[in-house]
Amino acid sequence: MQPPVIILVRPQLGENIGTTARAMHNCGLSKLRLVAPKMGWPNPHAINPAAGAVKILDDVEVFETLQEALADLNIVYATTARTRDMTKPVMTAKHAAGQFCEEIQSGSKIGVVFGPERTGLNNDDLSLIDRVISIPLNPEYTSLNLAQAVLLVAYEWYQVQGDFTSDYLHVAKGTYATKQELFEFFEQLEAELDKCGFLRVKHKRPIMVRNLRNIFLRAPLTSQEVRTLRGVVSDLVSPYTPRS
Amino acid sequence: MQPPVIILVRPQLGENIGTTARAMHNCGLSKLRLVAPKMGWPNPHAINPAAGAVKILDDVEVFETLQEALADLNIVYATTARTRDMTKPVMTAKHAAGQFCEEIQSGSKIGVVFGPERTGLNNDDLSLIDRVISIPLNPEYTSLNLAQAVLLVAYEWYQVQGDFTSDYLHVAKGTYATKQELFEFFEQLEAELDKCGFLRVKHKRPIMVRNLRNIFLRAPLTSQEVRTLRGVVSDLVSPYTPRS
Repeated sequence: MQPPVIILVRPQLGENIGTTARAMHNCGLSKLRLVAPKMGWPNPHAINPAAGAVKILDDVEVFETLQEALADLNIVYATTARTRDMTKPVMTAKHAAGQFCEEIQSGSKIGVVFGPERTGLNNDDLSLIDRVISIPLNPEYTSLNLAQAVLLVAYEWYQVQGDFTSDYLHVAKGTYATKQELFEFFEQLEAELDKCGFLRVKHKRPIMVRNLRNIFLRAPLTSQEVRTLRGVVSDLVSPYTPRS
Repeated sequence: MQPPVIILVRPQLGENIGTTARAMHNCGLSKLRLVAPKMGWPNPHAINPAAGAVKILDDVEVFETLQEALADLNIVYATTARTRDMTKPVMTAKHAAGQFCEEIQSGSKIGVVFGPERTGLNNDDLSLIDRVISIPLNPEYTSLNLAQAVLLVAYEWYQVQGDFTSDYLHVAKGTYATKQELFEFFEQLEAELDKCGFLRVKHKRPIMVRNLRNIFLRAPLTSQEVRTLRGVVSDLVSPYTPRS
């Protein structure tokens, strides 16, 4: 799938162009266009912030006008915080990302336009675009750094690509203990707690045992961790006898 | 609802601390803790990048160790790209954000820990945390800028707070016109409207042009539709001459 093209209109700071490239690469985007960058192009200040994404800077395309930068695209989105007077569809970044996919799949080439750092896009810029992305943010402070705005759009795009919606609550490598291993530890622990009198109040014993087991069941333990716990318990109950 | 506390461990650059504060404010977070910041604190380089979020910098709490920084919290998450050896639950930022809410609602105080720029969190740091956030990113380049990582977690947190489901439904199908096709139509139309006097009031021309363009941008047009419109305009301005 051909990812959306990112278009920065009259960006001021090279640093922001670099950080934008990095954020794009983080999310699998690679095509960056600049319209009339304030400090010209190439800009040495972009290089360090781009970190591992300098390839994107090498491939940047520069245009004099937004109109030229959009010429070969089919559907163009723009981010703006000023949505009040829009006579265009306004949507969240998440919703837009879903639409990119559908539109790209039906053969369209998509662009997302971001305005200059201080001022954002002006009305003439906005008159050229199809749809508006309004990122839901703290209404007391919606002013996003340029690269941060790009990141959020790119991030939502990337999330739609994979099946990350299913909240993969995987626990990475490392072999979990079998229940048998865990139960043997419970047996050992409870036997020792019976011996030492911790569980001596008979009618409270069942709930105390349940509570203890829950502590060790809350997060899955590895086999090694269970072995460690067994060692802890057996050492705790064996008074240290220095060898003679 | 008491939002999560953000904890930066041994951050190197003041700029990143400032940008972090800004991203936090964008997403309604306000409590920032620093553990052993490399350049000390306060750091003048943080101020400009914080933009409208300097209040967060004023309220920063500084700790010597991560352990001290976590002392009053109940559940602690950390972001790391190295999830391979984790024996902790690993989840997406989106999933984590949902969990924050539930946990906060049941009275827990939540923290999210971010490691130093170059190295990330070390194993001793990770041994203190409960859960791991792994943000789904381009596997070829998962190295996020520090403030960008904070932004994504804060953004997902903010999205869970409100119901931002978009109500916009998209209609058209088929091959959309390229912008070049559309712009050529705009040129033709506006030239004809200049000629015929429709756009004669000079100070109103820019807004009239924008409004016109918006009409044809509201819903994406197919190439065929643009050709039709061009025919409409050229026919409208060519007086009909019946063939003899």
